[in-house]
Amino acid sequence: MRRDATDDLLLPEAGNGLCGRRSLLRAGLGLAGGLGLAGIAVAAERPPGSLAPGAGMRSYGAPSRHVADLTRVGFSSQPGTDGSGVSRTPLERLEGTITPNGLFFERHHAGVPDIHPDAHRLLLHGRVRRPLRFSLAALHRYPLLTRTWFLECSGNSAALAADVPPQRRCGELHGLISQSEFTGVPLALLLDEAGVDPAARWVVAEGADGALLNRSVPLDKALDDALLVLYQNGEPLRPENGYPLRLLLPGFEGNMSIKWLHRLEVADRPAMSREETAKYTDLLPDGQARQFTFEMGVKSVITSPSPGLGLGAPGLYQISGLAWSGAGRVRRVAVSADGGRSWADAALEMPVQDRCLTRFRAAWRWNGAPAVLQSRAEDETGAVQPTRTEWLAANGPRSFYHYNAVQAWAVAADGSVSNVFA
Amino acid sequence: MRRDATDDLLLPEAGNGLCGRRSLLRAGLGLAGGLGLAGIAVAAERPPGSLAPGAGMRSYGAPSRHVADLTRVGFSSQPGTDGSGVSRTPLERLEGTITPNGLFFERHHAGVPDIHPDAHRLLLHGRVRRPLRFSLAALHRYPLLTRTWFLECSGNSAALAADVPPQRRCGELHGLISQSEFTGVPLALLLDEAGVDPAARWVVAEGADGALLNRSVPLDKALDDALLVLYQNGEPLRPENGYPLRLLLPGFEGNMSIKWLHRLEVADRPAMSREETAKYTDLLPDGQARQFTFEMGVKSVITSPSPGLGLGAPGLYQISGLAWSGAGRVRRVAVSADGGRSWADAALEMPVQDRCLTRFRAAWRWNGAPAVLQSRAEDETGAVQPTRTEWLAANGPRSFYHYNAVQAWAVAADGSVSNVFA
Repeated sequence: MRRDATDDLLLPEAGNGLCGRRSLLRAGLGLAGGLGLAGIAVAAERPPGSLAPGAGMRSYGAPSRHVADLTRVGFSSQPGTDGSGVSRTPLERLEGTITPNGLFFERHHAGVPDIHPDAHRLLLHGRVRRPLRFSLAALHRYPLLTRTWFLECSGNSAALAADVPPQRRCGELHGLISQSEFTGVPLALLLDEAGVDPAARWVVAEGADGALLNRSVPLDKALDDALLVLYQNGEPLRPENGYPLRLLLPGFEGNMSIKWLHRLEVADRPAMSREETAKYTDLLPDGQARQFTFEMGVKSVITSPSPGLGLGAPGLYQISGLAWSGAGRVRRVAVSADGGRSWADAALEMPVQDRCLTRFRAAWRWNGAPAVLQSRAEDETGAVQPTRTEWLAANGPRSFYHYNAVQAWAVAADGSVSNVFA
Repeated sequence: MRRDATDDLLLPEAGNGLCGRRSLLRAGLGLAGGLGLAGIAVAAERPPGSLAPGAGMRSYGAPSRHVADLTRVGFSSQPGTDGSGVSRTPLERLEGTITPNGLFFERHHAGVPDIHPDAHRLLLHGRVRRPLRFSLAALHRYPLLTRTWFLECSGNSAALAADVPPQRRCGELHGLISQSEFTGVPLALLLDEAGVDPAARWVVAEGADGALLNRSVPLDKALDDALLVLYQNGEPLRPENGYPLRLLLPGFEGNMSIKWLHRLEVADRPAMSREETAKYTDLLPDGQARQFTFEMGVKSVITSPSPGLGLGAPGLYQISGLAWSGAGRVRRVAVSADGGRSWADAALEMPVQDRCLTRFRAAWRWNGAPAVLQSRAEDETGAVQPTRTEWLAANGPRSFYHYNAVQAWAVAADGSVSNVFA
């Protein structure tokens, strides 16, 4: 990584100070804020925390008390209850791509059931030769698979479909997406063992919560990459994420990945349950309701700068954000600092993985004038994230699930950031 | 993933029932414990957790109360204190490769300091043209990098160098290793900005804890891939892992990755501090003490089955474990079920990454007789994990840091598992 001083140039790649991908590793240069101490006698000072022995070890850790706003932000959809609604990941407080389990987003329809693992069973029945019932101990004897995937609620970012840009933090607007490393048993193994009827086309999955939430999964998906998850980020699932067992359908809208999974019924038609008829359908401009929009679209959002994370003095800053697609890998993320007139490629953190959050970053020299920042993702299928105008033309005005349009943040002259429709 | 029933054969690859890599995806077959319900009318039962609304959403989650043993296991090295010693990751309770932050191992020399982020500064001085001081806000304006790496204490597994095999759980023996996704600023950027004296060869890093723990880092490493970490698994560092700032030296022994980092001094020689003279040196058979053994060796351990995680009835089980190397990628993991007489390749979870924990798995048909299980890793440089006899010949009998020999677990006829020297 040793470099010549002559390498240390910021290369403008788009308008309004945007330096883009090629400049990213050359952005040090004292431009960013190291306080020079040249000519001053530098003494090593004894920091206050070193003057006495520190705190003891803990059997299970927690964040620093000085990071007080590191919390999910909950919203109850049923007044008077605290277990039905959503609780969003604070995207603007995070970096990298993994969501710690304590901050993984929540969406519950009847609260979080308290399930004793010894009593839990998974029933696999319906159009199969041999119905089967599994304890958790039995599932642990099957081959396990580990994969990192994002999970996004189809209602994520829905507030952006409103007529006026809502003024909230990035996570409050877009935080129904999270990512973890999941470990579990491929559903295909259990279906093979049960022997699926050749006429079957669907698997109806049901949770053991108060809502008995159920969704119909195409058999092809169930046989392809559906995972019966036991572990998330290395440890057993958390209660709010489906302990002791959940379904995970990579790339598909979140609520199909049934939590507290206790029943799988192989069927020749979908269940036409509440969550695939009255809810989670898209009311299109022509008045038709589109059902079974499984795959989440290509999407990105700048997490910093963002509302509440304003800028200080003019100078060099880092634009950082997340991109993803339910169809596969992210191929490219373009960023703009001039309201979409010019674009530069952002740097993508490696390895870029299939149906994973991809962290992108770009260097930006802010000149202190108002600016509008945007990001636009493209996936390996060639799909490009739409503008808000394009999204509304195809889906509006009464639709709000599956919102994936470009997000614009306006930076004011005082460095504050707000949500704008650009 | 649809397969013919004729595919469903377990392929023996080594002695005593070991099926190895090629059989891993074919191990379902009703052999593993799904309870057949054929001929019985299958009714969907309403699970008890579904009879009432569940618990509410939480701003920061925690594990299920039914996973009571999901804790680090601490050991104080200074009687009468609880902040000096080690606290190990419970490897046998985890799956996949990420260690959740709450269970990342701890090693402190004077407890965990309570550091307010606004007051924290990093001083970069010594043999540089321009000494610099950085606030956390200043560091956040530099380009960030995200990487997943393991971190292992050089004292990990040291109890295995004893004369009698200690009877403890896998994590209690080998749990001074963990893995996270880390995000931070490449140290090379700051060194470039400060301007390193051509005669300099070392960087001495110092923590802001009560021990002012310091270690000398070769300048080449500092300029190569050393990271100043701000985020771990997506969120700000935890206090016990160095909040608000730590050094991370991928592949090197853990205590060099100085936590609570507040000072970096560029120097022409190492500091010869307590932790690189009196401690963390290897006393070799010829009486010489080997200093500066930075890179951690190639190593693996079977996490399941392991002591406390015994087997039930004879039949098909999954062997699961972790492999790693400070020198690069894991190339191969061989497993044996007959005390090392024959070996089969285990399946490696993809992607296998540089200086990362790699999860390996193999199918094993246990016949109910006593058996000895072992794993042996090889890395991309061709280095192979030594047997215990080989390790002792090269390092024994008074050395105990950097222990990386093959671990053997004995399975008794009753299914219980114990630690043996094989």
